[in-house]
Amino acid sequence: MSDRREFRDLADPETARRTIEELDLTPEPETVPLIEARGRVLAERVDAAVDVPGFDRASMDGYAVQARDTFGADEAEPVVLDLVGEVHAGVKPDVTVDEGTCAEISTGAVLPPGADAVVIVERTESVEEGIEIRTSVAPGDSVMVAGTDVAAGERALGPGTLLTPREIGLLSALGAEDVPVRGVPRVGIVSTGDELVRPGDELDAAAGQIYDVNSYAIAAAVSEAGGEPVLYPHAGDDYHEMERLLREAAADCDLVLSSGSTSASAVDVIYRVVEEQGELLLHGVAVKPGKPMLVGRMADSAYVGLPGYPVSALTIFRTFVAPTIRRAAGQPKPATATVTGAMAVQDRYSEGRNRLMPVGLVADGAGETLVYPVDKGSGATTSLVEADGVVWVDADTEYLAAGETVEVQLFSPDVRAPTLFGVGEDDPALSRLLDRVERPRYLSVGTHEGLRRLRDGVPDVAVAAGPLRRAVDATDLGGWTREWGLVVPAGNPDEVTGVADLVDRDLRVVNRGTDSGLRASLDEELAVLAEDRGTTRRELTDAIDGYQLAGKAHESPARKVAVGDADVGLGLRATAEALDLGFVPLGEQDVRVLANPDRVEKSGVRSLESALDEMDDVLSSLAGFGR
Amino acid sequence: MSDRREFRDLADPETARRTIEELDLTPEPETVPLIEARGRVLAERVDAAVDVPGFDRASMDGYAVQARDTFGADEAEPVVLDLVGEVHAGVKPDVTVDEGTCAEISTGAVLPPGADAVVIVERTESVEEGIEIRTSVAPGDSVMVAGTDVAAGERALGPGTLLTPREIGLLSALGAEDVPVRGVPRVGIVSTGDELVRPGDELDAAAGQIYDVNSYAIAAAVSEAGGEPVLYPHAGDDYHEMERLLREAAADCDLVLSSGSTSASAVDVIYRVVEEQGELLLHGVAVKPGKPMLVGRMADSAYVGLPGYPVSALTIFRTFVAPTIRRAAGQPKPATATVTGAMAVQDRYSEGRNRLMPVGLVADGAGETLVYPVDKGSGATTSLVEADGVVWVDADTEYLAAGETVEVQLFSPDVRAPTLFGVGEDDPALSRLLDRVERPRYLSVGTHEGLRRLRDGVPDVAVAAGPLRRAVDATDLGGWTREWGLVVPAGNPDEVTGVADLVDRDLRVVNRGTDSGLRASLDEELAVLAEDRGTTRRELTDAIDGYQLAGKAHESPARKVAVGDADVGLGLRATAEALDLGFVPLGEQDVRVLANPDRVEKSGVRSLESALDEMDDVLSSLAGFGR
Repeated sequence: MSDRREFRDLADPETARRTIEELDLTPEPETVPLIEARGRVLAERVDAAVDVPGFDRASMDGYAVQARDTFGADEAEPVVLDLVGEVHAGVKPDVTVDEGTCAEISTGAVLPPGADAVVIVERTESVEEGIEIRTSVAPGDSVMVAGTDVAAGERALGPGTLLTPREIGLLSALGAEDVPVRGVPRVGIVSTGDELVRPGDELDAAAGQIYDVNSYAIAAAVSEAGGEPVLYPHAGDDYHEMERLLREAAADCDLVLSSGSTSASAVDVIYRVVEEQGELLLHGVAVKPGKPMLVGRMADSAYVGLPGYPVSALTIFRTFVAPTIRRAAGQPKPATATVTGAMAVQDRYSEGRNRLMPVGLVADGAGETLVYPVDKGSGATTSLVEADGVVWVDADTEYLAAGETVEVQLFSPDVRAPTLFGVGEDDPALSRLLDRVERPRYLSVGTHEGLRRLRDGVPDVAVAAGPLRRAVDATDLGGWTREWGLVVPAGNPDEVTGVADLVDRDLRVVNRGTDSGLRASLDEELAVLAEDRGTTRRELTDAIDGYQLAGKAHESPARKVAVGDADVGLGLRATAEALDLGFVPLGEQDVRVLANPDRVEKSGVRSLESALDEMDDVLSSLAGFGR
Repeated sequence: MSDRREFRDLADPETARRTIEELDLTPEPETVPLIEARGRVLAERVDAAVDVPGFDRASMDGYAVQARDTFGADEAEPVVLDLVGEVHAGVKPDVTVDEGTCAEISTGAVLPPGADAVVIVERTESVEEGIEIRTSVAPGDSVMVAGTDVAAGERALGPGTLLTPREIGLLSALGAEDVPVRGVPRVGIVSTGDELVRPGDELDAAAGQIYDVNSYAIAAAVSEAGGEPVLYPHAGDDYHEMERLLREAAADCDLVLSSGSTSASAVDVIYRVVEEQGELLLHGVAVKPGKPMLVGRMADSAYVGLPGYPVSALTIFRTFVAPTIRRAAGQPKPATATVTGAMAVQDRYSEGRNRLMPVGLVADGAGETLVYPVDKGSGATTSLVEADGVVWVDADTEYLAAGETVEVQLFSPDVRAPTLFGVGEDDPALSRLLDRVERPRYLSVGTHEGLRRLRDGVPDVAVAAGPLRRAVDATDLGGWTREWGLVVPAGNPDEVTGVADLVDRDLRVVNRGTDSGLRASLDEELAVLAEDRGTTRRELTDAIDGYQLAGKAHESPARKVAVGDADVGLGLRATAEALDLGFVPLGEQDVRVLANPDRVEKSGVRSLESALDEMDDVLSSLAGFGR
C-alpha cells in the first residue's frame, strides 16, 4: 500500500465528470459496408459523386415528345404524332424523337434524344395514324432532369450523422458501397473479485462464491453506449494473472473498466499497473455511490474503476462513463432520458453526502408519475430491475417531502413506469398470473408489508394471504385459495402430524418471515394450541427450534428440507409436490388481490383483473390451489 | 393480367392495419448465451433456481461474532473476544465462532458456523488479549442472509421482458448461462425493378439504370423494428429468376417484402406466386402513398408489397409493417415517437385522399416546434433525410393553416429537430462550414428561393450569393467572397475570354438555375454587355446555346464540361481547379449568411456564427475564396 498515491479528498462530481471527459477514447475511423452501417456515425462529409438520377428520367408512363409539337393541343383539338418506338426502364433508348414524332415511354426510363417532355398516357389515344395527344405540355413536364434529386458535388450528409434507414437510403442512391464511419471504442472489462464466478460456471456457495453480475451487465451497458465490450477472463485470486490481463487490456482497448474488488491486493495491482503506464487521476467521487471510483490514464488506454455493487456500478457507469464512450463513438446523446414526477413518500437523508438515489416509477390513477426510493442496500441485484432511474439528491438536502417534484434520470430513454405495480405475498399462482400482464412489477415483500405499502398509496395492488391483522381500504379484485402446511422429507420419515410436533419434538424447523401470510396462519394454529394447553403462544414458539429462522420466499423453507438442512418447513402443498417432498396439510388460506381504489382503471390493473377472471387453468395446474 | 384477383376499392387504412396485424410472423423462441442477450425479449418467465446470495454473507469488513456476546458493549465498556481465525471472500471458512470468540471477516465472505452477526472493523480494536468490541450488535447485523436478494423459487423476470443491462445483471446473479428469448422474425427483401443496380455495382446511367435505394433502406428499417433482414439477389428483368427467389424467400422467411416495381410483368409474377401459395388479401390502401400496397398470405410466410418511391416505401413500412414485426419479435412499442408542433406555413390539399404527409421540424426562437411539409414528389431520395416524420391528413381536410397544431409521427423516437435549418446557395465553403455544426440541415435551393423561404419564417438562416434582388429583414452573421467565371476544358482549347464569346460564338453552354446567385451575377455581366451593344439582355441570352440549360448544383455545369457534354459551364474557380479544368474569371461575389432575427440565439445558429468567425483555414483551402 505504501507506493499508492494519496487522494485525501473525494473529487467533486463536476471535476470527476471533466476528468473522464478529458480521457481520449476516440478510436480510428473505419470503413464499413453500407448494408452494415445502420447505427454507425459518419466520420466525414459525404458529397455526391454522381447525379441522381444520372439521366433525364420519365416520371410517368406515357409518350416522350418535343413539347413544342403539343402546343395548342387539347381534348377538342388533339395533335397526332408518329409513333417511332418505345423506351423501357433500364434500357438504353434506341429511338430519337424528332419533330412530329413521339415514343412510348415507361416511368423511370431514359428520355430519348430529341424529346424534352412526357405526355401522360391518360391524355393520349392510340389511333390509326399514330398517337393522339390531347393536352399541351411544357418542356420538362413529367421529366425528372438528371441531378434533380442530388447533383454531383452537392453536400449529401455531414460528419457526425447517425445512419438510420433514411440516410442509408440516400447513400444507396449515391451508390455508396462502403461508408467512412467513426470507430467503435473498445472497452475492456476486467473482473477482480476473488469470489466471483462467471454465469454458467459451477458455483461453490459454501466457499462463498457468487456469480459475477457486473461483467455482463457492464458489457451490455457498454454496447448500449456505443462501445464494443471486450470481456477478459476472470483471474480469481491469481494476482499475477490479473496484472497480465490488465496490461493486455490496456494495450488492446481504448478504455479498461474494472469494478470494485473487495480485495486490497486487487486494488494494489490496479494501482501498480496504472501508475506504471501513466497516472491515477482520481480516487473517489463525492457522490454516493461513487466513493470507490478510480480514474486513470495509461499509455494507450484510459482506466476507470467502478464500485462493486451492481446498482452502484451501473449508476456510476451511466452517469460518468457512458457519455464519454458515446462521445468517442460519435453517437448522439440519447433522446430525453429524464422524467419529472412527484415523490410518493417522504425520504430522509442524514449523511450530508451527494447521492444518486435509485428510484422506481409508478403512474397514479390520473396518469401522473409518482417516484419512490428503491434502496435495498447491501448490493442487492434485484434493485437493478426494481429501480427505473436515479434522482440526484444534494448533500444539503435533509429530506424530500411526499409530493415534492423531482427529476429522474432514467436508466435508458425507453424506460417507462410499469403498467402494474404490485407488492405483497409470494405465491406460485400469482407468478403465473403476472405472466399475463404486460410489463408488471411485483415485489414479494409479504402480506403485512404489502398492505402497509398499499395504505401508503405507492403500489397499485397488494396481494394478501391468510388472516389479515387489520382492515384496509381497498378494492378486492378477486383471489384464490391455497393449501398450506408443513413440508417434510419424502415419505415423512419423522411422522410429523401437526404443529404440536414442532413444539414437542426435537425437529429443525424453517419458518417464513413475519410479513408472510403463511406465518400468520401458522401463528393462528399455534394460538389455538396455546389456548388448548392453557399457555401462551410465546411459550410454544420458544420451544420450536427454528421458529425465528425465516426463509425469504414461499419455497425457501421447503428447499431447506430438500437439501437436508431442516426437518420441517412451512409451505404449500404445491411446493412440496414440485420438489418431491412430503406434506402435512394444516388448512387452506385465502389469497386476495386488493387494489388501490384510485388505480382500478389503470390498464395493468384491468388486465390483472381479467387474468384473475380466467385463471382456472392456472389454479388447476397447481396442487392444493382452487377458489 | 387475366388471372389477377380484382380489388375494386382501396382498403381503408384501419382494415389494412388489421389485415397486416393478423398475419402471423411469430418465429419459434430460441436460446441465446446471456452475453448476447441484450435487446432480446424473454420468451418465458424466469424463476430463481438458486438463492442469491447462496450463503449468509458478511456485508462489511469486521469481525464475525455471536451477537449475544456483544450485548451491553459500548465505547466506555468494550467486550474483549478471542480471535480464532479469519475468513476471506471466496474461501470456505475453516473456523467456528463459539461463545466468547470472534473471527476476522472480509466483506462478501461466508459467515462462519456459530456466528450470527458482524461487528464493523471501525467499532473494534485489536488488543493484546484479543479483539475489543466497542458496540453491541443484534443477530443479523451486517449480514446478508442467504436468499435475501433473490430466494430460490421466486419469480425473477416475466415473459416479454426486454433484456437491458439491468436484467442481464439480475440473470447473471442467478447464474444463467443461456436465456430463452423470443425468435427474431426473418424478413426477406426481394427487389423487383428492371432498372435497379445494387449500391457498389457499376451503373449504366445511359441505359437508365439507378441504384436500388429501397432494399438497403428497408433492410435497415427491418433491423430497427427487431427483425432480421434477408436480402435476396436482384433478379433484374429475369422473371423466372425472380419467381424462383420469391418462392425461396417465402419458404425461408416469416415475411417477404418487395417494393413497387414499375414493371407490370414483375407484379404479375408476385400475383402468381402469392395466389398459388395462399391468397392476396389486399391491393391498395386509401392513404397517399399506400395505393400500390399489396398484402398477401402464403403457406409459410406473409407477403407485403411496398410502394416504389423511397419515402413512400419507408412511410408505409413504418406505419403498417413495422408494428407487426415488432409484435412478432415481442419488442415493446418504442417510446413516444410523436411530437406536436405548429404548422410553419399553410398547406393545401386538393385530392380528397387521406395522406401521410412527410414533414420537417424546426425549433423557433422560443424553442417551440414548427412543422413544414416536405414534398419534393417524384421519388426524390433527398426527402428521406429532409423529412423528420409524417403528419396524418384526413381526406376531408382542405388545408392546414399556418400556426395550426399538428401531431408528427417521427421516423424514429430519437429524431429531433436539427440544431440549424439553413436554405439557399450551394457553395463549397458552406459545405465545410456546416461540418462544424452539430446536426445541421441545409437545403441548397439557391439564393433567390432561400431568401423567399427566410421571409416566410421557416428556416433559421439563408445563404445568399451575388447581387440580391430585394432587401430582406435579417441578421447578417458574416460571409466570404468567391471567384466565379466560366469553366472550360483544361487549357481552354476554345480560347474563351468572356461572356461575349458565349453570345457570339457557337459554344455549348451550361448555366445554373434562376434561383442561383451565380446566374444572377452572370445576368449582371450580360446586362452590361447588352448596354454596351445597345441591345436587350434577352437578345443576348437567346443567342447563347444552353442559357436555359441549368445544372442543379454549383459543380453541375463544370461536370458537364468535364465529360465533354458542354464547352463552357458557369462555375467557381475552386470547382475548375478541383476537377482539373480551365477557368476564365469574371469576378468575385459576396456570399452572406443571413439569419432570421428571432433565431440568432439558437445553439445551431450560434455555432454557425462562431464557425464563420474561424473559417480562414476553410477559405484558404479553396481556390478563389477569401473575405
